[in-house]
Amino acid sequence: HTSLCTDTRGEDRIVVWDEEFFQGRRQEFTTECYDMRAFPGWPCFEHVGFQGQQFVLERGKYPRWEAWSGSHAYHMERMSSFRPIACANHRNSKMTIFEWENFLGQKGELSDDYPSLPAMGWGSSAVSSFHAHSGAWVCSQFPGYRGFQYILECDCHTGKYKHFREWGSHAQTSQVQSIRRIQQ
Amino acid sequence: HTSLCTDTRGEDRIVVWDEEFFQGRRQEFTTECYDMRAFPGWPCFEHVGFQGQQFVLERGKYPRWEAWSGSHAYHMERMSSFRPIACANHRNSKMTIFEWENFLGQKGELSDDYPSLPAMGWGSSAVSSFHAHSGAWVCSQFPGYRGFQYILECDCHTGKYKHFREWGSHAQTSQVQSIRRIQQ
Repeated sequence: HTSLCTDTRGEDRIVVWDEEFFQGRRQEFTTECYDMRAFPGWPCFEHVGFQGQQFVLERGKYPRWEAWSGSHAYHMERMSSFRPIACANHRNSKMTIFEWENFLGQKGELSDDYPSLPAMGWGSSAVSSFHAHSGAWVCSQFPGYRGFQYILECDCHTGKYKHFREWGSHAQTSQVQSIRRIQQ
Repeated sequence: HTSLCTDTRGEDRIVVWDEEFFQGRRQEFTTECYDMRAFPGWPCFEHVGFQGQQFVLERGKYPRWEAWSGSHAYHMERMSSFRPIACANHRNSKMTIFEWENFLGQKGELSDDYPSLPAMGWGSSAVSSFHAHSGAWVCSQFPGYRGFQYILECDCHTGKYKHFREWGSHAQTSQVQSIRRIQQ
């Protein structure tokens, strides 16, 4: 069991404890680049080398692993790698979503947060490919930002994710029902 | 195990199955008032009479109970009551948050979605009282809309929630680290 805190005092660091409620052995990680605005969140990964289940830690306090680990759907108890994220001013974030892989089928232009894609008129419970023109985004399997999370960045893959294997679907499907910007 | 679907074909209804993946006995609930814009989400409750743990279901498909049940923090497997929510155009949503109970202490004015209150400069991991001037809101215990959820509406309590007992904190604390509007 581990507790986490991404610092709120103007420094880009992540502090990890090996016991709940900020007790036990403490380890601190900082970034080389000191620019608070550039790092609104920390993409974290289940396995080393940025592999496995993904999730974003926004600034704040996570006193127990249940607070930061993803969803009930997949019982994840470890976080093995993380990195800071660089992204555009979220007010300029733009992404195109596609119904089918390889940027085909119905198309949607996003520039806001969408707790429910069906509610915005998206006629499917799936998104198969993405083009992140600017900013960094987190997509979730279920409405209301629930379930598996997938991180998409304009700075990775030149922002182009043409198949669910490229955005790392743990569900092995294109099931995506909510999308939001990673905001500072 | 139950699957759920809040309909996307322009009708305000919620459909519940007693097996996963939309199988088994099917029950359908509709609202009397037909106005899609008026009901952007369904506040759901663990117990009958709108009691117990709260969560919002946005429009979409929830194939397993893990998809809609809240957080790891409290293992909830049932949903016993729900109702449609009426709220203002979310673009006009306004809420004031207060550090202490009874609308005292540091104050923050909200009109947007905030995946991390610490990141917007809120100096605490708690919000003790709320005044929802317009719209309906969902507050979460942890950043990134994780953990226990609490629903706040301008139409309930005349929008005033002066103590965590009034907004129904299951954590029995004022721990709130992310807040968003309930959007259509």
